[in-house]
Amino acid sequence: MGWMADETGLERNAANFVPLTPLSFLARAADVFAGHTALVYGTTRRSYAEYHDRVSRLASALARRGIAPGDVVATLLPNVPAQAEAHFGVPAAGAVLNTINTRLDADTVGYIFGHGQAKLALVDTAFLPLAEEAVALMEGPAPEIIEVPDPHAGHPASGRYTEYEALLATGDASAPWKIPEDEWESLALNYTSGTTGRPKGVVYHHRGAYLLSMGTAVSWKVGIHPVYLTIVPLFHCNGWCHTWMMPTVGGTVVCCRDITAKNIYDAIADEGVTHFGGAPIVLNSIINAKDGDRRNFDHVVEVYTAGAPPPAATLAAIEPLGFRVTQVYGLTETYGHVTECIWRDDWDALPQEERAAIKARTGVLMPMMEDITVHDEKGHPVPRDGQTVGEIAIRGNAVMKGYYRNPKATAEAFKGGFFRSGDIAFQHEDGYIKITDRAKDIIISGGENVSSVEVEGALMHHPAVSLCAVVAKPDDKWGEVPCAFVELKEGREATEADLIAFVRTRLAGFKTPKKIVFCDLPKTSTGKVQKFELRARAKDL
Amino acid sequence: MGWMADETGLERNAANFVPLTPLSFLARAADVFAGHTALVYGTTRRSYAEYHDRVSRLASALARRGIAPGDVVATLLPNVPAQAEAHFGVPAAGAVLNTINTRLDADTVGYIFGHGQAKLALVDTAFLPLAEEAVALMEGPAPEIIEVPDPHAGHPASGRYTEYEALLATGDASAPWKIPEDEWESLALNYTSGTTGRPKGVVYHHRGAYLLSMGTAVSWKVGIHPVYLTIVPLFHCNGWCHTWMMPTVGGTVVCCRDITAKNIYDAIADEGVTHFGGAPIVLNSIINAKDGDRRNFDHVVEVYTAGAPPPAATLAAIEPLGFRVTQVYGLTETYGHVTECIWRDDWDALPQEERAAIKARTGVLMPMMEDITVHDEKGHPVPRDGQTVGEIAIRGNAVMKGYYRNPKATAEAFKGGFFRSGDIAFQHEDGYIKITDRAKDIIISGGENVSSVEVEGALMHHPAVSLCAVVAKPDDKWGEVPCAFVELKEGREATEADLIAFVRTRLAGFKTPKKIVFCDLPKTSTGKVQKFELRARAKDL
Repeated sequence: MGWMADETGLERNAANFVPLTPLSFLARAADVFAGHTALVYGTTRRSYAEYHDRVSRLASALARRGIAPGDVVATLLPNVPAQAEAHFGVPAAGAVLNTINTRLDADTVGYIFGHGQAKLALVDTAFLPLAEEAVALMEGPAPEIIEVPDPHAGHPASGRYTEYEALLATGDASAPWKIPEDEWESLALNYTSGTTGRPKGVVYHHRGAYLLSMGTAVSWKVGIHPVYLTIVPLFHCNGWCHTWMMPTVGGTVVCCRDITAKNIYDAIADEGVTHFGGAPIVLNSIINAKDGDRRNFDHVVEVYTAGAPPPAATLAAIEPLGFRVTQVYGLTETYGHVTECIWRDDWDALPQEERAAIKARTGVLMPMMEDITVHDEKGHPVPRDGQTVGEIAIRGNAVMKGYYRNPKATAEAFKGGFFRSGDIAFQHEDGYIKITDRAKDIIISGGENVSSVEVEGALMHHPAVSLCAVVAKPDDKWGEVPCAFVELKEGREATEADLIAFVRTRLAGFKTPKKIVFCDLPKTSTGKVQKFELRARAKDL
Repeated sequence: MGWMADETGLERNAANFVPLTPLSFLARAADVFAGHTALVYGTTRRSYAEYHDRVSRLASALARRGIAPGDVVATLLPNVPAQAEAHFGVPAAGAVLNTINTRLDADTVGYIFGHGQAKLALVDTAFLPLAEEAVALMEGPAPEIIEVPDPHAGHPASGRYTEYEALLATGDASAPWKIPEDEWESLALNYTSGTTGRPKGVVYHHRGAYLLSMGTAVSWKVGIHPVYLTIVPLFHCNGWCHTWMMPTVGGTVVCCRDITAKNIYDAIADEGVTHFGGAPIVLNSIINAKDGDRRNFDHVVEVYTAGAPPPAATLAAIEPLGFRVTQVYGLTETYGHVTECIWRDDWDALPQEERAAIKARTGVLMPMMEDITVHDEKGHPVPRDGQTVGEIAIRGNAVMKGYYRNPKATAEAFKGGFFRSGDIAFQHEDGYIKITDRAKDIIISGGENVSSVEVEGALMHHPAVSLCAVVAKPDDKWGEVPCAFVELKEGREATEADLIAFVRTRLAGFKTPKKIVFCDLPKTSTGKVQKFELRARAKDL
């Protein structure tokens, strides 16, 4: 390997080797961008110098409260400033940040408290009942609760716990941070949504969060001083690491507690938001906003969307409103997005429908990743023919350390030297990946694979359909048949027969839903439709 | 430190840990940007797929010719495509790239051949006499010479050596690259200019080049598909690592063999160049270009300038021409630039003179660096008062491994846990660093420190002065006095008395030159004035 004939004196030293950690980004920004606005929430505005001060207070206060390096600190918080501060303050104490999904049930939160062995939890006043019920249900020692009230949002302090600001008051703004000695040290613990069985705890290291942040800043046209709106919950892959990334470019993080079309438009118009990430469902809410909720703005907002490919109809409607949408793809196991549908200039001239089809692709490798390829069952890349499907296999520095206290699942996930995503895709001739389905979302009807995503895409073209999800319904004759759950747009109508006939004009008979159910779709906190629930309902139909 | 209670199964594996190397950037670009133009030289245009093919051929051809991992491969090349290809092809063979300054004398080149123990050298036909003389003068085994002819530039093959294209023809475009197993493996060997004594061989590792590239892509507003003109020679800090960086954003590298104002204007107008780096002297040549050499263009060209602070007069003249100039600072020991004079929007409203003064600052930490501070003699940061000077001390991942086969100089350079730059500066209250002098460039006159840079800045305001350099002249009474060497603009006149009187209106008497010499200034290949030569001449005056 590349060692020279004589490497005497060329070893690592304090000057030329520093473990990679996102903590460095904020330390630099506190100096380089000291007076620039780092955080906005309602009327609260904090500069990078203030952000750094509060993070230092939090870290030293946690240490004084007995939090040791390697301990887990949990949060049950919406996208409020305390959640952003925890992203730096908890690791600055050497501890591991466990942001918990606030929409989980108490039993699951209790399981996570117990499995992660959190010593302390920052809990929004609104989620105290959830935390308390979780503690009652959990096994093992309970975390100490620190309450984060939000009186302006209607959640004044309960008076039952130490408050977040009181905790910060015990800290020292000039206390040095605990910087990792090894960039492989653990930074965060993120539990998967766990559609079957108990959720798994994905462990991130400092190196991966640093590199994903750098790669995102390179790819996402952030320039300098972007204004970022927190739509993706910070408890979801740590908000795709965007909170860690923003200090590299002196960005402003605008916190958004309740994700509504009105709040999004207001943040764009009032705070000059330039960037956000969100599921396609967020795009739909922007498109379908009431007139009174819309605001005018004169810049282009860059949007990373993920979770499901944006339907062509959604793209066609949102781009004229001033949003440039790029699909990205990743999983909790990859710190957020690791592919991006990079746009090529020569696609500009294509008809809108073809452009939308390209935008619906999952994309190509982001700059910090090494290899993302579709593999067949033997672990060989499938031909790039735009049709042969396989599993997306991922290799690179933004891949998790593994699952916490679950070496068996870890070994399974890494079999063959790649992280096996469980997502089914093909590759176009030009290398662009296109997800067809989560492995478990494929419907097998009469021996033919039916892509639920493809059927959903066809339904979304119907002018009355606002949202839909297609799952397998057990069928005596065909094994499974597609079954669609549909939300209609306000004031629009369509019958089951209408929609079936509509899809049939676009898709083969075996791909056409045999059953349409009109209802509100169950969704996760990130706007993903909970198909496991629909699958259960389809079974009972 | 941040290790969790149970880290079983959370170790590095093939899926989640890949050593950082700039080789990854080209491997990705060859797929993601396969058809995009990677390299342009005259009528030659190569796509990323072709670039990758040729790099693979070079790497495998080198291996077949006996180049083993860790061996040194030298180049004596101008900024032609072979030089860019060597930046990937040599490390892809596991070897270490030693780009040698083509303007050095044969004795020094021979010393570098011998000290670096190069096994093979890629030599431009124009520099064969230099290489041959160097081989005749050197000690130890000579490198095998591979000739890189450039017939279009008037340098057809001599017929005496294996030609570069013939070497590539023995390679295999599908041969796998030797990717480092450890990101600390050596990537490049760059000899300092060595103003006194023999030059020192600065060793770069793969990690540092990867991170400097990422940090540059984040900071330099490169967006996607920038068009980069190679003005900085690739033998100078590997062209500030820009050739390694460009594939991360699908950039096009436009090779420029001869740096003239005409060639620069043509590249901007014909190839759409958006970015380049160069010394202030390059900016002056653009400003002072003959009318027939100028071209119109309608975009803004982003320019990183380094080597000396851009004089206010230069900035005032070049910005209206369509160039946005940002000063950066670094050394061979730091892979190129590690600080950048990041512009703040609220400075836009300042008068031109104040804006120029700010642009002449050395700047602040780039995103991939950890700490760059001005230290006093005890290694403590000096107060940020805009006047107390000290030495710039640097810590971060883009700091060299050390000096090759010189552990003593390495230990000296890293004393105190920082790389000690030898550059003298103060820090403004806002943290921006301002270099006043190289340690050896300070003139001590009557016990007062005189900054040669300050005196040069004053002289540059005179309308007849094109370029100048100020050094110490020994003086019986004052110890040293400032002595200025001046190039006048074509067609302009000024006497020694004129210039002395002019400077006296701007500076204190002890800072005013006592002697002015009109002559052509001796320059290095990167446009830096060779002050050591002027110092010798000042001594003899």
